[in-house]
Amino acid sequence: MNNPTAAMLVIGDEILSGRTRDANMYHLAGQLTSAGIDLKEVRVVSDDAPAIVAAVKALSATYTHVFTSGGIGPTHDDITADCIAEAFGVSIDVRADAAGLLSAHYASSGKEFNAARQRMARIPDGAMLIDNPVSVAPGFTMGNVHVMAGVPSVFTAMVASLLPTLTGGAPLLSRSLRVERGEGDIAGPLGDFAARYPTLSVGSYPFQDNGMYGANLVVRGQDAGTLDEAMVDLGAIFHG
Amino acid sequence: MNNPTAAMLVIGDEILSGRTRDANMYHLAGQLTSAGIDLKEVRVVSDDAPAIVAAVKALSATYTHVFTSGGIGPTHDDITADCIAEAFGVSIDVRADAAGLLSAHYASSGKEFNAARQRMARIPDGAMLIDNPVSVAPGFTMGNVHVMAGVPSVFTAMVASLLPTLTGGAPLLSRSLRVERGEGDIAGPLGDFAARYPTLSVGSYPFQDNGMYGANLVVRGQDAGTLDEAMVDLGAIFHG
Repeated sequence: MNNPTAAMLVIGDEILSGRTRDANMYHLAGQLTSAGIDLKEVRVVSDDAPAIVAAVKALSATYTHVFTSGGIGPTHDDITADCIAEAFGVSIDVRADAAGLLSAHYASSGKEFNAARQRMARIPDGAMLIDNPVSVAPGFTMGNVHVMAGVPSVFTAMVASLLPTLTGGAPLLSRSLRVERGEGDIAGPLGDFAARYPTLSVGSYPFQDNGMYGANLVVRGQDAGTLDEAMVDLGAIFHG
Repeated sequence: MNNPTAAMLVIGDEILSGRTRDANMYHLAGQLTSAGIDLKEVRVVSDDAPAIVAAVKALSATYTHVFTSGGIGPTHDDITADCIAEAFGVSIDVRADAAGLLSAHYASSGKEFNAARQRMARIPDGAMLIDNPVSVAPGFTMGNVHVMAGVPSVFTAMVASLLPTLTGGAPLLSRSLRVERGEGDIAGPLGDFAARYPTLSVGSYPFQDNGMYGANLVVRGQDAGTLDEAMVDLGAIFHG
């Protein structure tokens, strides 16, 4: 039983220049793991149309789902929607449903629904809107690409709107064991253990804690019974 | 004058599963910006040999430098060095210089230099070692690919060892202006401003602060004089 696969595309100069520390990747990774969708790859590209179009084409051809963050606001550097239209070879224009949401929102808050704000109603032809309960301007799904905002509070809200509509697989379960020995001592028996459980993935994440070396051993899989059995085995190896 | 370009490749299931929040991308992005090396793309892939090999080939063919993090420890899931050798079509084996560093280190700390630890001395043929002042096991540079550890304290130390040896360009300078108006009001004049300064990059990063909408406008470029002139102009537009 294979789970759906996914990639994420983070769009924005501010991540690549080191100005902003990305938060959306970490959030989405956890949400997809819970939903049983396997995040296989993340790419970060700048606000550069050819780079965005190439990444969208490559990722949407490879994975079940692609989730993007960033570049759908009202300013000149917000070019994601146009790039998605280009990648899918469809037209893009201000769409009535999106414009309606925005004009009502700005009317109620006394702000002008000007040309810049109308840019946020530009939706590629054939896309479905993703609800934005935080700041109204919608995301959208075009083909297998889900386009969301970069502001973390808005991204999080859009993921919450979107994920229940997608078909997930079996959630990936994980268990961990802390071992206070250096990875060099752990590696041999851990490798033998991993070979005995081919349906589980086994990772070792080293730490240093007040000069003491150790590792958190993380075992992941979809079947709780196999996972429980393996953890008894692992405990006997390292704490037996 | 074009700066050298760079990509980063983050290797590890723990990032894609949401278990660990990546710190190395943010660190490297800031360091490269200061060094005048333009980070153009980041990819994150899992501990999967075909995915790592394909990403190394694609990125090393496209950018001046590639920086990797993760997968060079002693455990079974540490496969980065073998993947680099495969991507470059060279052999890999335990190398005397790396083994010498490690055996001296373990001898002095009373630990066995066992088969797992010897894995950390496997270096692709023709690579140069990168110093690791934290935990001795070295990184390496193969062609234009710089291979470093995933543990943040070790990654940071390796970047500090490596970066002074690379030829950078003009550091990217940045200035910012906080504007307490919604992006939809800012966008029109900001787009006109950006068009007047084609050698500068102009970004708008929105925020909400106690219900107030605003944006940090960030202007980046290599020439301090142009940047200063532009910031006077920008101040007159939004705070004049």
